[in-house]
Order: sequence, then C-alpha cells, then structure tokens
Amino acid sequence: MTKTVAIIGGGVIGGGWLARFLLNGWNINLFDPDPEAERKVNEVLVNARHALPMLYDVALPAEGALNICDTVQEAVQNADWIQESVPERLDIKHKVMAEIQAHCRADAIIGSSTSGFKPSELQEKSDNKGQIFVTHPFNPVYLLPLIELVPSPENAPADIERAKELLTSVGLYPLHVRKEIDAHIADRFLEAVWREGLWLIKDGIATTEEIDNAIRYGFGLRWAQMGLFETYRIAGGEAGMAHFIAQFGPCLEWPWTKLMDVPELTDDLVQLIADQSDEQSGAHSIRELERIRDNNLISMMRALKQQGQAAGALIQAHEANMQTTPAQAPTMETVRRVVPVDWTDYNGHMNEGRYGQVFSDAADGFMLAIGADQEYVAGGHSFFTVETTIKYLLETHAGEDIVVDTRVLLADGKKVKLAHDMRRVSDGTALASCEQFLLHVSLDTRKSCPPVGAVAEALSTLSTGA
Amino acid sequence: MTKTVAIIGGGVIGGGWLARFLLNGWNINLFDPDPEAERKVNEVLVNARHALPMLYDVALPAEGALNICDTVQEAVQNADWIQESVPERLDIKHKVMAEIQAHCRADAIIGSSTSGFKPSELQEKSDNKGQIFVTHPFNPVYLLPLIELVPSPENAPADIERAKELLTSVGLYPLHVRKEIDAHIADRFLEAVWREGLWLIKDGIATTEEIDNAIRYGFGLRWAQMGLFETYRIAGGEAGMAHFIAQFGPCLEWPWTKLMDVPELTDDLVQLIADQSDEQSGAHSIRELERIRDNNLISMMRALKQQGQAAGALIQAHEANMQTTPAQAPTMETVRRVVPVDWTDYNGHMNEGRYGQVFSDAADGFMLAIGADQEYVAGGHSFFTVETTIKYLLETHAGEDIVVDTRVLLADGKKVKLAHDMRRVSDGTALASCEQFLLHVSLDTRKSCPPVGAVAEALSTLSTGA
Repeated sequence: MTKTVAIIGGGVIGGGWLARFLLNGWNINLFDPDPEAERKVNEVLVNARHALPMLYDVALPAEGALNICDTVQEAVQNADWIQESVPERLDIKHKVMAEIQAHCRADAIIGSSTSGFKPSELQEKSDNKGQIFVTHPFNPVYLLPLIELVPSPENAPADIERAKELLTSVGLYPLHVRKEIDAHIADRFLEAVWREGLWLIKDGIATTEEIDNAIRYGFGLRWAQMGLFETYRIAGGEAGMAHFIAQFGPCLEWPWTKLMDVPELTDDLVQLIADQSDEQSGAHSIRELERIRDNNLISMMRALKQQGQAAGALIQAHEANMQTTPAQAPTMETVRRVVPVDWTDYNGHMNEGRYGQVFSDAADGFMLAIGADQEYVAGGHSFFTVETTIKYLLETHAGEDIVVDTRVLLADGKKVKLAHDMRRVSDGTALASCEQFLLHVSLDTRKSCPPVGAVAEALSTLSTGA
Repeated sequence: MTKTVAIIGGGVIGGGWLARFLLNGWNINLFDPDPEAERKVNEVLVNARHALPMLYDVALPAEGALNICDTVQEAVQNADWIQESVPERLDIKHKVMAEIQAHCRADAIIGSSTSGFKPSELQEKSDNKGQIFVTHPFNPVYLLPLIELVPSPENAPADIERAKELLTSVGLYPLHVRKEIDAHIADRFLEAVWREGLWLIKDGIATTEEIDNAIRYGFGLRWAQMGLFETYRIAGGEAGMAHFIAQFGPCLEWPWTKLMDVPELTDDLVQLIADQSDEQSGAHSIRELERIRDNNLISMMRALKQQGQAAGALIQAHEANMQTTPAQAPTMETVRRVVPVDWTDYNGHMNEGRYGQVFSDAADGFMLAIGADQEYVAGGHSFFTVETTIKYLLETHAGEDIVVDTRVLLADGKKVKLAHDMRRVSDGTALASCEQFLLHVSLDTRKSCPPVGAVAEALSTLSTGA
C-alpha cells in the first residue's frame, strides 16, 4: 500500500527528502508557508528526477502523488512519516512540533532534520516525546544515503526499529546515534574541518580552491569508501591499529591543528579503539583491505575520469601524454591496455558489453591512424557504427594485458568494414574477434557520404592491401 | 631519456613513491638499511602493478629498472630526483639530508615525505638549502594524485616550477603550499578530524565503524569530488558563499566540536572567502555545480556498486528490493531502466559498448524468466554468449528511459538464439536490435550440453511460440 509522508518545510533539505520519498513511490503532503515553496521544491525535483533513477540498474517504482497543503493539519493528519525541516531555531522547532503533534496520527514517526539540536531538546515541550526523532540528512538528500537517526531515552526500541526499516526502504542508511550529543557525529567532523579551514584562509596559508584540492585529490577519495579508521588500520599494517596509534599518537601534542584540547591516549583508550577496529575490519587481512581500497579508488577515480571531473581530470591529462597514434599499416595495433576492475561483472570476468567498448576504442584508434581525427570531425565528417558482430572466444579477467589488431575488410565509398582481433598479451591467445560496419557521414546533413581527402586515400590504400 | 629517482627509505610511503616512478618508466635507485626493505618494497609493488595500470585506458610506459643500492652515495649520485621517506624525527632527517647532499648532483631535487616538518626546518643545516623541498604524498602513493609541494623562501621559483613539472609528469598533482606551516594543509584537517574522532570514541558516542559510516555514506562522497568550499557554495545557493557563512557562522560559537578556538568572522574574512570562492567556482552557476556534483556522485556511487563496497553495497541492497523477474511470454520485457551518466562517451551519447551491456542484461532477465537463475547455475549449468550482432539505429543519451523486449529465435538442444529490441520509452522509437547466440554449458566439464528440467521445457515452449 502506498505510504504518505508529510514534508514540513520545503527548502533544499525538505525538498531533498520530498524527492527521495516521491521517487520511491510515496505520496507527499507538502506544507511550507513560503509562497515560493512550490517553485523551490520543483527545482530540487528537477535535479532529483535527473539523478536518482540513474543510480540504479533497474527502474524505480512509479512516482507517488505530490499534494501541496494549506495547513500543517492537512499535511500531517494521514501521514505515516512526518519530516520537519524548518529553520534551525529551537523556539520555532518547538512551535512546529506542537502543531504537528496536535494533528498527526499517534503512530506516525516525526523526524527532524536538525543539524545540531539533540532529540531531548526537541521533545522538551511534548506530551508524546517518543514520537519525535532526529533524522539528520546530508545534501543532496535524494542521493546521499546517510541519515543520522538520533533517539533520546524517551523513544521506544520498537519505534527506533520501525524508523530504521522505513528509512532503509527508500534507500537510506540510518546511522543509529546511540548517545545524544550536540551536532550528532558527522557535523562534529564537518565543523572541526570548517573551523580549521577558516584559520588557514584567515592566516593566508591557503585559498578555498587550494583547500578543496587538498581534500579531493587526497584523503577525500579515501574517505568516500572507507572513512577514517579503516584507512588508518591499513596504514598501521599487519601490526594493527594499536601500532598506528603508538606511531602517530605523539602528533597529538604537536601544533598540527588549532584543536589542542585533546584526550589523553591512555592504554584503555588505545585498546578500546583497537578492539573496535578489530570488530569492524578484522574479517579481512591488511592485504585484503589494501586490495579492496585500491579497487575502490581505481573505480571511483575512473568514474570521475569519465565525467572529466576532479581527480578524473588529472588522469585524463596524464593519459593524454601517454597516448600514441597507431602507425598506418595493413594490420595495426589499435588498443593496448589492461582490463580494469570496473569492467568485470558478477561472474568475475569482463562483461560482454566491455568487449564492445574495446572494439569501439579500436575503431577510434584506427580513425586516428587514417587521419579521421578531431580536426576531421570538426570539419563536419565522421564515421558512425551501424552494426557490430562480436565472437566471444575466451573469458578475460581484470588485470590482464590485452591488445587489438585491426584491419580493413572493405572500404567502398561511404561503407567501411573493419575486422578486430583481441588477444591476451602474455601468451598471444585470441580472446574475441569483431566485425564492425561503419558509415561515413556528413555531420551537417546527418546523411552518409564518401570520405574526403587524406582519409579517403588512406582507406583506399588499406583496402587494397597496398 | 629515462630519468632516475633515488628512493631513500622504502617503507609504505617510500615504496609507494618507488612504484609510482617505476611504473611511469623511471629507473629507481633504492637505499634502505633495513634488511627487509626489498621484501617490503616488493609487497607495495605487487599492489601497485595490480592497481596503477588499471587507472588508465592506455598502456603505461615500460617499467624502469630497479636497482638496490648499498649506500646513499650509490643511490643518489646520478639521480634527477631524490625522495626521502625516513622516520619522522628531525635529527634523522638532518643526518640523511647531509649525506644525500654530500653525494648528489647540484641540480637534483630532493623531496621529503615529511608529514609535519616545514621545509625551512629540513633545510636548517644545509649549505644548499634551495635543493630541499617538502613533497608530502598520500597513501597509497601509487594511486592518489595529491602531493603537497612546500618550498621555503630559499627555494628558487625556477626550481619550484621544475619540481611541479616533474611531479606532474608521473601523474601526480603538486599542490603548491605557498606559506610554510606545521603539517602543511591536508594533515591539519586529518589531525582535526582524528582528534575529534578520539573524543567521540572516548566519550562513548560512537565506535570506529559508526564514525567510518558517518563519513563514507555522507560527506566523504562529497569531498572526493568537490572538497569543502565548493560543496558549501552549492549549499549557499544563488545567494552565494557569503550567505552560506552568514547562515552557519553562528554555529562557530556553539559546542559543535572540541575545537573552540575559532577565528572571528569579520566582514573582511567573509569577503575574502566569498572572493576566493568566486575565483574558484564562479564560472559555473549553482545549478551547473549541482548537476556536476550529482553526476559525480552518481558515477562514484555506481563505481562502488560495481565493487559491492561502501555506499555501493547499500545501493545493491535497495535495488534487490526493486528487482522483478519478467513473466514468461513469447515476447517479454527483460530490461527497463534509465541510461545513466556513466554510460556516455566523449560524443555525449551512450557508448557502443553499453548497448552490449544492455543486451547482456536482457539475456540475464530472460534467463531469470525461464528459471535459469542462481540456483540453476549453482546446480552446475549456465549459458555462455558465443556471438552477438548489434544493429545501432539511433543515438541514445543519459537520462532516457529504455526498455528491451526479448524473444526466442531458436532453441535447439544446447543452442539458443535470442532477439532483443531496445526502444525509447517516451515515444517507442526503436534504438537498437541484437541477435545473441548462446550455448548451454556444463560448468563441471566446461563443455556444451542440452539444458535440463524446467529450463529445457520453458525454452521448448517459447521456441514454438506456444
């Protein structure tokens, strides 16, 4: 049965919650007194409708209904979940909570998006304290999975479980914060980093851009996949977490940050951390963790490369320096590379589709060799692939070196047929072959036409085996 | 001409430098008095040889030569670059620097991997101070691009440029730290976060695993691609960075971290940050930045999904709940999805290879429908794709909804031929078609054999159109 969420406050955060629920099939009741609320929510929805469906390899459920409500009462009365994202002032939060609780179902869960207030503070004035949780999201809420779920002692364990299940059902990750604290967990780190950053800028050490580069080209990539402690566990090596702390513990007394009120590294504290780290990551050896980390980093950096962004732009630039144009020959090597980890599928071997990509790259290499390069394309001509036939001969795995040899089967006016052979470098074994039929097109008319100039000459030479 | 780097100290960091240079074609002279050094370096090399070549879509240059040296003199005398990664004690660093400088070329650059010391401290006892830099890397050095390049006023601008070029040539990103400071830039953040983390554990708020999840499911993903300030620029919306600071400035006085010695947010400081942010990101509107951020996040999270790690594991779990098995029918819908941003190539349309992946997924859907599921495969049988022919009819772009209809062309004993038609959902336009020839195999003998049980029956029914 379709569930209903009441969104109270439709800014960037409230709008993000709304989009997350709507695109997971929930009905939405939105209340926001701002006359611009509907427009603002729609802006978030445009982004979310672009983004969230792309995250998955299956279709999302049909969208729920979006109802704009005139009152809090109308919004909350039939809602299963109520998400409050009003401005960060305790008096406002109390007033809104009271109005919500005057009209909502007794079994509805009320989550607050507060960054800083503790649930017991939000519950202060309430007669049904156990209904109110902190559920703190991260922007963009429609993409990032983390929700800090913070109960107070007033929230019943069964309700905590219910809240977790519900958040999980829309693709979120509820992190149960077991002990209330100002700013929960994540924002404590964000705030520490923000304050440190302000000092660096104020003292003229670094600009905003230099700081961002220091983060996104280094530890930001590590943190996206393992966080802090598992990363340091690896740094400690087989000697373990206690060794890492012993090695870097003394830094705590050095002026390496403006944060100088540090806990004493007692044996008890070191042991506590080491035990927790064993519990978290002990199932893997350090070697295994290194391999997991590296494969994650490769995959993420290659994903950024495909976007031409951040660390991926650096890889593109370095790669451009290593790229060579194949020499024109009756049979020319058009691809030489390693099969990367992000090309394998659940079978552990290279996905069928990636063979197509390799042969597409081979055709690109061939085009470079005959002079059908960027300049040629800028001049209004290109080759479009019309049909491809691939024969799969052997499985291929991540880490294997492969090459592709390409030759012309046919070059007749606008028609070109290429044959590609893909081999394993180590033993020369044939892995796959491909016949590719291409048409030369005018990019102006989008119609086929014969190639021109040096490209036409090269094709004519190669097709006769001269 | 092949260049030579001297690696002084071959631990995890020195070994990482060594691997980065070696795999980029440099010759290596390694000196480390530890009798275990060669073994340790080889362990790093095993990881690096697995990882670094996968980062690129072209082949790396041929590896350089690795020479193990008995003395510092032997290692450094013909080196173009000398990288020092000895233990983090200033007296040791001074001693090693003196020995290096006694034997190295006057025009060689000496980089120190120190996490905390300032270059002027390293240069203190030297007669050729301008030769010594801080070049602080991040583990794993063979993958992460960031190097903090910290000169003192003693280093000549031309040498700074030379150092930058050289680091860039092996795929690194030299971040020029313009003003010396303890722990440079990145480690100040790492240290602030580490100290905050110690408090959270000591106070029993969170475990190492909870902290790591708070990072990697939320802001860690943001930081991997945009860092801190560009992320907050987006949060500030069209009103800009100054608005963001005005909104969140008051938090600086709240106990949101243990770091309480904060700079005063004067108008000058706010303006400085806003100006720097304009300089950094002003070329893009907030809407454009949101789109870039979202596409980056989608691509990285999908990369992690393919690895089954971190946020990607959460997406897999959510997707499993949305997955449906196609109903058996003469023509069945085997794929319904959106084309994600990570499937496009430099032409802006879906890469040739991804059509192959869609049709491979269609075959998977078909197999589920006829009962050739995980259980069937676990029973020792499967289908292998032998040949695929794809006809490309129209370009497809990111964000488009697509479906694939699949039917059986032939099912004759061990041979199965499927026909797939891929259509755009919005207007039903045919985008591509595929004929796929599969062989049923025994996973024990790896030889072809007829299908069994319900799978055989289903194929027989579908092939006769019954």
